[in-house]
Amino acid sequence: MLKLLREQVLEANLDLAKGGLVLYTFGNVSGIERSQGLVAIKPSGVPYDKMKVADIVVTDLEGKKVFGDLQPSSDLATHLVLYKSFLNIGGVVHSHSEYATIWAQAARAIPALGTTHADYFHGPVPVTRALTDAEIHGDYVLNTGAIIVEAIGSKDPMAMPATLVAGHGPFCWGRDAGDAVHNAVVLEFVARMAVHTMALRPDGAGISQALLDRHYFRKHGAKATYGQAQSGKAQ
Amino acid sequence: MLKLLREQVLEANLDLAKGGLVLYTFGNVSGIERSQGLVAIKPSGVPYDKMKVADIVVTDLEGKKVFGDLQPSSDLATHLVLYKSFLNIGGVVHSHSEYATIWAQAARAIPALGTTHADYFHGPVPVTRALTDAEIHGDYVLNTGAIIVEAIGSKDPMAMPATLVAGHGPFCWGRDAGDAVHNAVVLEFVARMAVHTMALRPDGAGISQALLDRHYFRKHGAKATYGQAQSGKAQ
Amino acid sequence: MLKLLREQVLEANLDLAKGGLVLYTFGNVSGIERSQGLVAIKPSGVPYDKMKVADIVVTDLEGKKVFGDLQPSSDLATHLVLYKSFLNIGGVVHSHSEYATIWAQAARAIPALGTTHADYFHGPVPVTRALTDAEIHGDYVLNTGAIIVEAIGSKDPMAMPATLVAGHGPFCWGRDAGDAVHNAVVLEFVARMAVHTMALRPDGAGISQALLDRHYFRKHGAKATYGQAQSGKAQ
Amino acid sequence: MLKLLREQVLEANLDLAKGGLVLYTFGNVSGIERSQGLVAIKPSGVPYDKMKVADIVVTDLEGKKVFGDLQPSSDLATHLVLYKSFLNIGGVVHSHSEYATIWAQAARAIPALGTTHADYFHGPVPVTRALTDAEIHGDYVLNTGAIIVEAIGSKDPMAMPATLVAGHGPFCWGRDAGDAVHNAVVLEFVARMAVHTMALRPDGAGISQALLDRHYFRKHGAKATYGQAQSGKAQ
Repeated sequence: MLKLLREQVLEANLDLAKGGLVLYTFGNVSGIERSQGLVAIKPSGVPYDKMKVADIVVTDLEGKKVFGDLQPSSDLATHLVLYKSFLNIGGVVHSHSEYATIWAQAARAIPALGTTHADYFHGPVPVTRALTDAEIHGDYVLNTGAIIVEAIGSKDPMAMPATLVAGHGPFCWGRDAGDAVHNAVVLEFVARMAVHTMALRPDGAGISQALLDRHYFRKHGAKATYGQAQSGKAQ
Repeated sequence: MLKLLREQVLEANLDLAKGGLVLYTFGNVSGIERSQGLVAIKPSGVPYDKMKVADIVVTDLEGKKVFGDLQPSSDLATHLVLYKSFLNIGGVVHSHSEYATIWAQAARAIPALGTTHADYFHGPVPVTRALTDAEIHGDYVLNTGAIIVEAIGSKDPMAMPATLVAGHGPFCWGRDAGDAVHNAVVLEFVARMAVHTMALRPDGAGISQALLDRHYFRKHGAKATYGQAQSGKAQ
Repeated sequence: MLKLLREQVLEANLDLAKGGLVLYTFGNVSGIERSQGLVAIKPSGVPYDKMKVADIVVTDLEGKKVFGDLQPSSDLATHLVLYKSFLNIGGVVHSHSEYATIWAQAARAIPALGTTHADYFHGPVPVTRALTDAEIHGDYVLNTGAIIVEAIGSKDPMAMPATLVAGHGPFCWGRDAGDAVHNAVVLEFVARMAVHTMALRPDGAGISQALLDRHYFRKHGAKATYGQAQSGKAQ
Repeated sequence: MLKLLREQVLEANLDLAKGGLVLYTFGNVSGIERSQGLVAIKPSGVPYDKMKVADIVVTDLEGKKVFGDLQPSSDLATHLVLYKSFLNIGGVVHSHSEYATIWAQAARAIPALGTTHADYFHGPVPVTRALTDAEIHGDYVLNTGAIIVEAIGSKDPMAMPATLVAGHGPFCWGRDAGDAVHNAVVLEFVARMAVHTMALRPDGAGISQALLDRHYFRKHGAKATYGQAQSGKAQ
């Protein structure tokens, strides 16, 4: 069932590990088949170097398992909230990648300090508010999704494909599972540069709106000029 | 004698090196066979890439060698104090891993700044007081164990499987030698993120008790939901 | 056409990746054949591990393509300004290498803090002013070249083979494409040391002019004494 | 001539590169044959991955070449001053290793912040004064040696096997070329931890004299207890 999607999700999970974003079994990637409303996701607690296509679990948008012998990632409910709220995304990643997590732990948004950031994120990468005790004691994983949706607000999720969950770590998304991982890898790079930029320039003044727009729209949208004609975005 | 335990201890020592936690011959891992009161430990000053099962030394809980031609790790007496004081642990690791050692050198506990920390350590990772000159001139290695026990105090050692020895470095423990190394690798990751989080948020305010509990008990204890059914904790 | 130059430019691009200065398709290297006024440059958005000699694009100094099926790097116009303004250079590199980009994002010149710096850069590595909104809305890529030329001013470009574009990242150059990459790799190393030196010595006081001169002229110019007789500069 | 010494010096140079302490051709290692007063040293500007035993140059203590076709390292005169002043050393290393160079650029001694430091360096690692303009314009390389000797003063060079040259980088030494490289690798590790320890504890208060002595003499001297019986110091 959905073998192609499961293969893509497996490969995206392995790319997350290859990109240096995971320690042990940390992190998880999913992808969605919108026409059927089905999501393929990493199983919980399985080492990346032993993961097989058959281990990828498939559930519906309510989290009911429709394929697979293993338990899905314990973060499944967060992924599902994002798919239901952000209708133009096709893949979701959660990781504890080092520097994005550092910004999340500091409960600070990542300012748009340069064009590397602007090439991918059209403004500061937002951070959620802290969950209340009631939200933590209640449906914690689902509520984590809800505060991400709250942090994105009226922004286009594809123009801001990441949010930091305060005290926890980043969630990223994209056109599909592979694109979501690509965004997660770039977020980590941007987060790392931002930590040290702040040390040299504590005011954290970012680039101008004009420069932010110039770079973002160079890589995205109808007028993109980066890359070769067949693709609107470089891989 | 105790070949299986020595094999586990050798493998755990090699995992410590593979995890990037050692330079040259720094660090040492041991494991205990509780029923016989025997401890297997790395020999002193032997390079990791030349270490063999036959090199692993076995002693009793008083430090008397019962197997092996080599001298045991010079930190043996600290390991023995921990085994005698923390009756539910099965393995001990000492390393000079970079960032955990940085916190130890700064003589500061590592605050619980995020859920990565909470998944493994149920509160701030404590730091010992400094040893007095008398304790240093006396039975230094044994006294190092004593101040670790003092720092853990009434906490459950399995819910706080690490302590930083001030001016020295971390000691970690776990169910067995491999689990102790797993905890040491995660401690290093948590310590590294904490150093840079403090730069962005100097007050070092940690996560709420509710979030700390939610994550810790998601991975540990009778109600753990992380991983597949057969294991209470992910490897 | 210009097969040798294209081979050199390909190899220099691959060296940029091997030197740890690129993520995904970030960065680009070019080289010039002065006698014909032709420039060979990396294609836009092609992964480094799939790049072939045939993919390297050749253009004239006005940016008109004279060889190749692919689109040239979207930064081509900046390279061309540099070749037209700095007549003694033979290769140009643009990267988003981590620490040089950090200084660019902080909009600060890199002070000459040590002899490693002095061996390659005869003074602080300059940073450009920010582009105005009009310059960004206009011919942005060409204007980026113009502010680099403005930042170098009356300095000999071969004695200061790098400039940081504020809010963006470094451009470097050299005798040829390979030498430009060599300078980019050293700039990254120097930038990384400078970030942490500033943490220990916030005044950023650099070395004396005498020491700067001694090291720079030990490796460059008619009286260079470093390396073996056949080369004026070590590779 | 002195083939064994040249082999040891070649291997030590390669270990310097393997230890992550060099970029391109930076750095150099030498060793001395005391009975003949001859020094074997890396040639200037030769890439590490192409260096052969035949490339290692041999000179007398006045710097006169007695073996080899290549030019010796441009830092030869510094090495010779150290051999003539520190009669109990057998090998010398100069590198621009990242974090030791950072301390040198900040012109600060590295305080003894922990037992990792104390295991190798019996007190803070000293930094030289800056060279005067006259010393730079004069016999610069020899004068670099002289200020190192000045910084060591009455200390036993084998109990303090490193000095940072202000604005430049570290020189280290040891029993032989390999031991000098071992000390250089540990110095880099200690320097790296010290940079970040200072961020957490800006007063830079080090460990007590009692703890410094305990660790230093655990690994060195007649009463050393670390390692196996056949060696007074672990490799």
